[in-house]
Amino acid sequence: MNAIASAFERKVHVPLGERAYDILIGPGLIARAGTEIASRLKGRKAAVITDEHVAPLYLEALIQSLEAAGIASATLVLPAGEKTKSFEHLMTVCDKVLEARIERNDYVIALGGGVIGDLSGFAAGIVRRGVRFVQVPTSLLSQVDSSVGGKTGINSRHGKNLVGVFHQPDLVLADTDVLNSLSAREFRAGYAEVAKYGLIDKPDFFAWLEANWQAVFAGGIARIEAIATSCQAKSDVVVADERETGQRALLNLGHTFGHALEAATAYDSSRLVHGEGVSIGMVLAHEFSARMNLASPDDARRVESHLKAVGLLTRMAEIPGTLPPAEVLMDAIAQDKKVKGGKLTFILTRGIGQSFVANDVPASEVLSFLKEKHPQ
Amino acid sequence: MNAIASAFERKVHVPLGERAYDILIGPGLIARAGTEIASRLKGRKAAVITDEHVAPLYLEALIQSLEAAGIASATLVLPAGEKTKSFEHLMTVCDKVLEARIERNDYVIALGGGVIGDLSGFAAGIVRRGVRFVQVPTSLLSQVDSSVGGKTGINSRHGKNLVGVFHQPDLVLADTDVLNSLSAREFRAGYAEVAKYGLIDKPDFFAWLEANWQAVFAGGIARIEAIATSCQAKSDVVVADERETGQRALLNLGHTFGHALEAATAYDSSRLVHGEGVSIGMVLAHEFSARMNLASPDDARRVESHLKAVGLLTRMAEIPGTLPPAEVLMDAIAQDKKVKGGKLTFILTRGIGQSFVANDVPASEVLSFLKEKHPQ
Ligand SMILES: NC(=O)c1ccc[n+]([C@@H]2O[C@H](COP(=O)([O-])OP(=O)(O)OC[C@H]3O[C@@H](n4cnc5c(N)ncnc54)[C@H](O)[C@@H]3O)[C@@H](O)[C@H]2O)c1
Ligand SMILES: NC(=O)c1ccc[n+]([C@@H]2O[C@H](COP(=O)([O-])OP(=O)(O)OC[C@H]3O[C@@H](n4cnc5c(N)ncnc54)[C@H](O)[C@@H]3O)[C@@H](O)[C@H]2O)c1
Ligand SMILES: [Zn+2]
Ligand SMILES: [Zn+2]
Repeated sequence: MNAIASAFERKVHVPLGERAYDILIGPGLIARAGTEIASRLKGRKAAVITDEHVAPLYLEALIQSLEAAGIASATLVLPAGEKTKSFEHLMTVCDKVLEARIERNDYVIALGGGVIGDLSGFAAGIVRRGVRFVQVPTSLLSQVDSSVGGKTGINSRHGKNLVGVFHQPDLVLADTDVLNSLSAREFRAGYAEVAKYGLIDKPDFFAWLEANWQAVFAGGIARIEAIATSCQAKSDVVVADERETGQRALLNLGHTFGHALEAATAYDSSRLVHGEGVSIGMVLAHEFSARMNLASPDDARRVESHLKAVGLLTRMAEIPGTLPPAEVLMDAIAQDKKVKGGKLTFILTRGIGQSFVANDVPASEVLSFLKEKHPQ
Repeated sequence: MNAIASAFERKVHVPLGERAYDILIGPGLIARAGTEIASRLKGRKAAVITDEHVAPLYLEALIQSLEAAGIASATLVLPAGEKTKSFEHLMTVCDKVLEARIERNDYVIALGGGVIGDLSGFAAGIVRRGVRFVQVPTSLLSQVDSSVGGKTGINSRHGKNLVGVFHQPDLVLADTDVLNSLSAREFRAGYAEVAKYGLIDKPDFFAWLEANWQAVFAGGIARIEAIATSCQAKSDVVVADERETGQRALLNLGHTFGHALEAATAYDSSRLVHGEGVSIGMVLAHEFSARMNLASPDDARRVESHLKAVGLLTRMAEIPGTLPPAEVLMDAIAQDKKVKGGKLTFILTRGIGQSFVANDVPASEVLSFLKEKHPQ
């Protein structure tokens, strides 16, 4: 284990005034977590929240590192998976945090993927009306997306992420070594979000990914670089629109179609995980933009060929099992987005890295596009 | 019912920047709620949360007033009492709000005392990471205290109000007529908080209360005046310290002893309600200040004689049942306050209306004072 920072470590600073924080990205960060926290913040107690997959791999190392830095910790291991983002588990986490006598300057530490991060961050935002929060994201998706930006939350029977708070972390430690134990499928799913940042407004980054994706998957400097660029991209959007009233919507590129597909497969991860839905959704968003004469069909083909190359799904037909008809997918989109006067808000594009928020997309056009792409 | 504002209506503006809001205080405000909301805000849907005591008295009138102003409402009636501030009921409220398809600009409306206000405000703060919130406080305590300032929350088995968020209301409508159906005991309990504002830093207001309390209890202009002065006082403190990092602590005058007494009576409202604990606590705070040679014993006598005159408890011995020994009360205080190096933070006073935050009160002095006041 590295006791000192790797020469390749990267830092992304998120300049949110009194809520500003650093994201450290590099190898060996779990072993150094205690030092990094103690050198920046003054709490001396932590409640570490993790899941049953991650606990056996990394919990011990994290706790030892905290202890060595004089930070005592209580731990809570929860079941893995999306169902853990519930009111019941939120109550369990709050209870554990209170039992550990965490005060305003002490920490809740999330060790895990986006599920653990979203749930623990919510608890950190409400116990004593807010205690400090440290993210140790362990999935690629959480390192490049969910651990940055301060959105926390749980699901309700009325939909995903409908209950939560904005609560920015005080520090994010993205240990790039731990991604080696992530399944290839989960790694690819996270990679869809990495590619997304290129497609939103960084054409050079997308081109770099086309040339270097094997190195990103292999680990090492290219992986650190890709994660740091992604965190910087998300940070830029969040800083411009912390509470999501406008431009932050760009982060939803591919997500309107993606969410509809997740709903259509009942959030059954054996059929579709979020990043796979986003991958298919990004191809659809580019194809739809071409159909609306906004972008060239070549761009859609280029997007598809890259996502296919890394092993991601790119077509609705590739999803195992039967999908409901286009009308049902359209209903899911309308639920997600609110249709006003037959129009809805969509992230469209004028080409690779030229996405924009379109507020007046006719629902009828989306429906006929879906019928064409997914004939019953 | 008054369709137009009473000439005696008062408005207190809480200047919190983009979270600024108005508190309206006067008769007939429930009948005018729809108009007041619709003229200020643009949502057209509301979820009204109330309790089983208040619902039969005022729910119908509120809903009709909303409807007349074009605001459709869903309603939820919860059990009355402190136990309702729980995770279970929080989930029920969130569910109802989502079921009613409340969006960010629609409303959660709390119709009731501090219990309904704290619970509904918390739900409004977390559904969709924050929707609009309107308080229609119906107890004196909620009109002068809990509905102002944005603290929301629920209780945990580890203690009261330990889980919650800061979520400012968008409008507070304090209808002074509804206080006529409040029990005399609950009215007096709320009055303890009114007197508190005088004792913190408004000696003239305290003197005015000594002369005019009968008129405040009777209703009419004096009541409106007392409530408006209280809201203004709380607003001033909140504006100076929205997130409670310093001076907001002054609002805890009488509360350190009061909370210990509430804990010692297991929050059993048949023995002691919050305002009664605060009443006894304020007398104790003045007596303790006299003992520390900070204030004259005459001030403590003056405080006691006024609170006694309105019918409030002022002595530990008046609490029905047996209190635990002084050491146990002291433990409760230490839990509430955190003792650092044998010292604790306390609100003390140099006389009527001259309270201050003391950071270095020796715990040993508090204990021997308690032993003297409550010999076993
Ligand atoms: N807050 C936000 O802004 C935001 C943004 C995007 C997504 N999200 C949320 O994130 C969640 C998805 O995140 P996720 O994909 O990380 O899901 P996840 O947390 O369920 O992790 C995926 C799987 O990988 C396992 N895992 C994690 N790290 C591992 C490691 N290093 N080694 C081995 N296994 C590991 C987990 O146990 C889990 O089984 C969703 O709930 C989504 O709503 C939130
Ligand atoms: N958020 C804050 O800043 C803050 C400040 C002080 C107190 N509080 C909280 O407020 C709560 C206490 O508030 P409360 O004293 O209003 O308690 P409450 O809400 O329980 O109301 C007291 C009783 O009066 C009844 N009632 C209310 N209005 C009535 C009316 N007009 N007519 C007849 N009956 C009526 C209620 O049903 C209840 O039985 C506590 O939970 C406390 O923690 C919060
Ligand atoms: Zn995503
Ligand atoms: Zn009080």
